[in-house]
Amino acid sequence: MSDIYNFSAGPAVLPKAVLEQARDELVDWHGSGMSVMEMSHRGKEFMGIAAQMEADLRELMGIPANYKVLFLQGGASSQFAMVPMNLLRGKASMDYLNTGEWSKKAIKEAKRYGAVNVVASSEHKNFSYAPGQDAWKLDPDAAFVHYTPNETIGGVEIFWTPQTGNVPLVADMSSTILSRPVDVSQFGLIYAGAQKNIGPAGLTIVIVREDLIGQAVAGTPTMFDYKTHADNESMYNTPPTYAMYIAGLVFQLLKREGGLAEMEKRNIAKADLLYNYLDATDFYASPVARDNRSRMNIPFTLKDAALDEAFLKGAREHGLLQLKGHRSVGGMRASIYNAMPIEGVAALVDYMKAFEQKNA
Amino acid sequence: MSDIYNFSAGPAVLPKAVLEQARDELVDWHGSGMSVMEMSHRGKEFMGIAAQMEADLRELMGIPANYKVLFLQGGASSQFAMVPMNLLRGKASMDYLNTGEWSKKAIKEAKRYGAVNVVASSEHKNFSYAPGQDAWKLDPDAAFVHYTPNETIGGVEIFWTPQTGNVPLVADMSSTILSRPVDVSQFGLIYAGAQKNIGPAGLTIVIVREDLIGQAVAGTPTMFDYKTHADNESMYNTPPTYAMYIAGLVFQLLKREGGLAEMEKRNIAKADLLYNYLDATDFYASPVARDNRSRMNIPFTLKDAALDEAFLKGAREHGLLQLKGHRSVGGMRASIYNAMPIEGVAALVDYMKAFEQKNA
Repeated sequence: MSDIYNFSAGPAVLPKAVLEQARDELVDWHGSGMSVMEMSHRGKEFMGIAAQMEADLRELMGIPANYKVLFLQGGASSQFAMVPMNLLRGKASMDYLNTGEWSKKAIKEAKRYGAVNVVASSEHKNFSYAPGQDAWKLDPDAAFVHYTPNETIGGVEIFWTPQTGNVPLVADMSSTILSRPVDVSQFGLIYAGAQKNIGPAGLTIVIVREDLIGQAVAGTPTMFDYKTHADNESMYNTPPTYAMYIAGLVFQLLKREGGLAEMEKRNIAKADLLYNYLDATDFYASPVARDNRSRMNIPFTLKDAALDEAFLKGAREHGLLQLKGHRSVGGMRASIYNAMPIEGVAALVDYMKAFEQKNA
Repeated sequence: MSDIYNFSAGPAVLPKAVLEQARDELVDWHGSGMSVMEMSHRGKEFMGIAAQMEADLRELMGIPANYKVLFLQGGASSQFAMVPMNLLRGKASMDYLNTGEWSKKAIKEAKRYGAVNVVASSEHKNFSYAPGQDAWKLDPDAAFVHYTPNETIGGVEIFWTPQTGNVPLVADMSSTILSRPVDVSQFGLIYAGAQKNIGPAGLTIVIVREDLIGQAVAGTPTMFDYKTHADNESMYNTPPTYAMYIAGLVFQLLKREGGLAEMEKRNIAKADLLYNYLDATDFYASPVARDNRSRMNIPFTLKDAALDEAFLKGAREHGLLQLKGHRSVGGMRASIYNAMPIEGVAALVDYMKAFEQKNA
């Protein structure tokens, strides 16, 4: 096998131990004679896999009993519509924080279903930071407050939990879920596409407080109504069974390795390794305000953008893949989710130092 | 490995050669150092996989150039809403044929978006047949005509293609796609969940004539608008990459084995084996009219329903799995998609004969 580190923003690196277990079980799961891909979602084998996976996620995140966990399809992009369609509940307006490209997409979609009040925005500063809550103009009558705790593209992370009183707090946690503990009870709804910190693309996890379910606006497609899935244990139709199985293997691994507190410790160490170097050199720079530097997605620029192509080419030759920044931002981006070992970050920093020495 | 045959209606048996190749490539795809699950959907490796897969499907089905092939999520259940939302195009009414449980679900969802004219129904005969086109009351001004060429639950298949003139024909081919050749040019839109004859659950394929794209009703979620996906080569957001890869392996296998004409030949032989026995005994019976007997899903009943449990228990002991009929129909159902070898059907018939001899 080629020896590589994959810094893709998603789909992204998965734990090697999970992939090896999936390989060993692929053709015949636990002597059943079937691949998990071949199992009826209503058969006892898969029902067991799904139940264990949900229990493990509930344990890892400490999800209270009055929250449903839904295993859906369609990614965060579908949630951009499902959240307003389900949570507007006759209210006149929705509050959104604007901290980057994903916030903007969520806002654009929400506007199709009602008025959006942007409580604060960092767009005038090129999304280089997240406004503190003292700068937010919250509407006490809003249907909900939506924010993006980690902007995958901009690399802007919010490490504190907004306080929104009785207004439900909604978070797109696609690229931060499972990277550190969160207090789920402070949220009305959390959603996340799986393809960053959970498992393969094609699975979307929604954690929603039960009292927010069942008030979808007229015309909401049955499949876009949380109630459809909550009432049927995510088995109203065929769920993405294989992606759920892989996610379940990831959850078991995280439990074995010490849970989210341990993940946070490792993620801080990994992020520090790269940020400390970025701070120590002027050959590279981080565009993000210190308090909002993401631990998951680390964009950085070369002082001389004319060297970008040479940097990427050399990186690929060193087995450091998918470092090109998003087309809307440019520069570089290293996504270092839970499954990226610290050795990968160290290899990146070593390469960056060598490239600097050669080109400075 | 246990030696079993899996008659699940979906997710269902996959070709052993595909599973073995997937296993061999799971941790490291073609020396890339990455699992397909870990690949960026915008990276050259996965873009290549996706392009090859679409080309192979186009070749297998003979899809004309003026049709888009979309790789979506959400299953047929999402298409039940997407079809009317996209294809109503200001018309007053939609035509639907009602031949079973899946037709009924499609009709129920469509009614949320406009008037539905049921052109014919076999519900009064317990969905035991499909009305011929001479019995259909088509509306020449309908937005489209929707039918279900194979009812997975009832086992009712329509082997002829309805003639609807200028009104676009829409087919839910979830459980018949790739089982025999079809003339795609006669359809406005074909959709299919993958988990029967294509690949793992979590992938939905839509084949749609280009002129039908781009007229979604107001309020259609961006992710439910075919134009979103058609304009972005199904990469508007992250597609279900691993399910697409497995589907691609299935398509390559079908091509190697002789394409859909060869599949049809094999499927006829498999279905005949079981139906001929059902016709030769009065211990078991097929509830479906001869002309509409599905080649993919074969329901049958025991004359004495009190023996059902013993039949299923013995079947499991013989490694014949998932034969219990759908809860809405009762009795038994053997789903024998492309990937079910004729040896599996022969083993089932052998068991049925032995069970009959013991209990007649």
